[in-house]
Amino acid sequence: MSVTAAAGFVAAGIAAGIKASGNPDLSLVATADGSAVAAAGVFTRNKMTAAPVIVTRSHLESSAGQAVAVVLNSGNANAATGEQGLADAEAMCAAVATELDVAVDQILVCSTGLIGIPMPIDVIVAGVPALVAVRSVDGAQDAATAIMTTDTRAKQVVIDGGGFTVGGMAKGAAMLSPNMATMLAVLTTDAEATPEQLKAALVHGVAESFNVLDVDGCTSTNDTVLLLASGLAGPVDQAALESAVADACASLAFQMCSDAEGATKVVRMTVTGAATDAEALVGARYVSRSNLVKCSWYGCDPYWGRIASDLGSCGIEFDPDTLSVSYGGVTVCRAAVDVDHDSATVVAHMAGRNLEIVADLGQGTGRATILTNDLTHAYIDENMGTS
Amino acid sequence: MSVTAAAGFVAAGIAAGIKASGNPDLSLVATADGSAVAAAGVFTRNKMTAAPVIVTRSHLESSAGQAVAVVLNSGNANAATGEQGLADAEAMCAAVATELDVAVDQILVCSTGLIGIPMPIDVIVAGVPALVAVRSVDGAQDAATAIMTTDTRAKQVVIDGGGFTVGGMAKGAAMLSPNMATMLAVLTTDAEATPEQLKAALVHGVAESFNVLDVDGCTSTNDTVLLLASGLAGPVDQAALESAVADACASLAFQMCSDAEGATKVVRMTVTGAATDAEALVGARYVSRSNLVKCSWYGCDPYWGRIASDLGSCGIEFDPDTLSVSYGGVTVCRAAVDVDHDSATVVAHMAGRNLEIVADLGQGTGRATILTNDLTHAYIDENMGTS
Repeated sequence: MSVTAAAGFVAAGIAAGIKASGNPDLSLVATADGSAVAAAGVFTRNKMTAAPVIVTRSHLESSAGQAVAVVLNSGNANAATGEQGLADAEAMCAAVATELDVAVDQILVCSTGLIGIPMPIDVIVAGVPALVAVRSVDGAQDAATAIMTTDTRAKQVVIDGGGFTVGGMAKGAAMLSPNMATMLAVLTTDAEATPEQLKAALVHGVAESFNVLDVDGCTSTNDTVLLLASGLAGPVDQAALESAVADACASLAFQMCSDAEGATKVVRMTVTGAATDAEALVGARYVSRSNLVKCSWYGCDPYWGRIASDLGSCGIEFDPDTLSVSYGGVTVCRAAVDVDHDSATVVAHMAGRNLEIVADLGQGTGRATILTNDLTHAYIDENMGTS
Repeated sequence: MSVTAAAGFVAAGIAAGIKASGNPDLSLVATADGSAVAAAGVFTRNKMTAAPVIVTRSHLESSAGQAVAVVLNSGNANAATGEQGLADAEAMCAAVATELDVAVDQILVCSTGLIGIPMPIDVIVAGVPALVAVRSVDGAQDAATAIMTTDTRAKQVVIDGGGFTVGGMAKGAAMLSPNMATMLAVLTTDAEATPEQLKAALVHGVAESFNVLDVDGCTSTNDTVLLLASGLAGPVDQAALESAVADACASLAFQMCSDAEGATKVVRMTVTGAATDAEALVGARYVSRSNLVKCSWYGCDPYWGRIASDLGSCGIEFDPDTLSVSYGGVTVCRAAVDVDHDSATVVAHMAGRNLEIVADLGQGTGRATILTNDLTHAYIDENMGTS
């Protein structure tokens, strides 16, 4: 159900012919009755902003946060495509608006795929009538499937907010180091809320989910998270809404990390004892981006020396004399020196799929966790030639 | 010849038994007559500073920049080894000082290898008499070989300064993102110079060589560059000395990049047209650390969209409308949009070993180049299990 689990929404996904493979590549999430509802979004901070991000931001502004539908495509990011790209993103919205007989600025648009390639806009526009025609409350799985690129699994979530529902779908398997947003995600709820309340819930929700996900340190040109509220469940407590949205974001972020390109490990890399939370985040992110550390994880190797080296060079307050590191709860070093420990437990932990690693700096009470992966041959295979 | 090319120096390298493989692992560079000469060093800024770095800095200070010899080992970095590590580094110096009958603070020490493992200090100290005994003007190749870890080739250089000589050796194939210094390098010269003049020449020399080398974004715990001057060639112009030292550093940095772990490409990633040189450096370094970009290079793929995306997200002044990117001198995008170009020339360039890539931001006159590599399966193989 995902995006159609909340009352008042329908969805669809079809193969329009954007992808040479013939896989599904065009997706829709819309209100069931074609009415405009409150909507909000958060977007990439990459200055190389893709056309659909620019158009969606503009539509949310001119419609005062009212939307009827989101149209999404995979197979082409419509990024680094200049004026033509903007015209193509508008054309996608216009085609859907025509079918639904609503204003063009009530349609939002997202794209994902290769950068720098002109959109096959005729193919997309030609596919819109068929897409809109098959929208239904049963279309959530198709919609989530049609936004996949190198994802191996559709990513969906349903959260019971207690009297209301939040549902969502997302895609993302690389170029994943979201900043104030992430790869594509569309959330829906039947809670009644203003665009401002939705925006507040999104900002809160992404902070501890997509924004602490770091697969490869690369922030995409197209990151977008949208939230639409039908209001059919009536007014809800803002804290309950924020909590349910945050849970949905956290689930989708974890699903992205689990399906990251080529990854064999999902790693929660935590830094504690930092001078501040901000310094802990710098440290955790720096370690999570270290190829030497990522290769160690791939090799099931608890090589804490590389983590120590990264923490020592990332610019935060650091003293080797107060550093300790643990794997799966087993402390392997104190004062930056190897200590006797239960090796068998560490070996078993490193052999598993989910790693819990904590580096304690002993400087203060700051802490942060980054959700990340190992670096594998398969990641290279997926990325050594795609243009 | 390398470190013995400058008059007044001898060198040696032996297999002392630190490495399980039996490969050479203990190295010496010393003045030919056992006299103390002017010396200077630059060191890692990693706060997880290795014991030999701490000891060498301390010795240079207490001896007022006078040194007789440098002892180096591979196979163990003596990093994250606590108080015992400091004692071990001092013991290495003491063993050499005893053999040469000089003060212990006139001996400098460098180590490279695994982090967090206690030094086999008895093996090392036992090997010192044999190491010192075989020192000679013909020992440069042996010395350069005995500091290798995952290096596949010894790295040596001789620069004719015009009336004086600068020679050097270095090692380094990963954890290479030097900051004010690099992996191990020892330079010698027969120029006459004070420790302060040597330090100035080193700081100048590393700025445009080791400090713009970025193999994997990881700054080592042990980075050290030392320069010793016998003075036998008499006084020289400081500018000539700085130039020759810079040339030696540049050659060694290029040799490191050429031999980087698993690399198939040596890439000069240049950013021009930045608001400032500092912003250009941020951009070039960010692109050089991008795994998606590095995978593209491995696949011989001129995927400029990923470079554009990195430049857009690295925090510097950036406007897609003024971005252009070229490969091997052929511009493939202008205003961040694909332009018609000579594809055959680009394909041929990408198939080669040396890539020249320029991203022009169109914002100002700032420029910077980072010397870097592609990311390959072999890099992962070398780093997935070594502790």
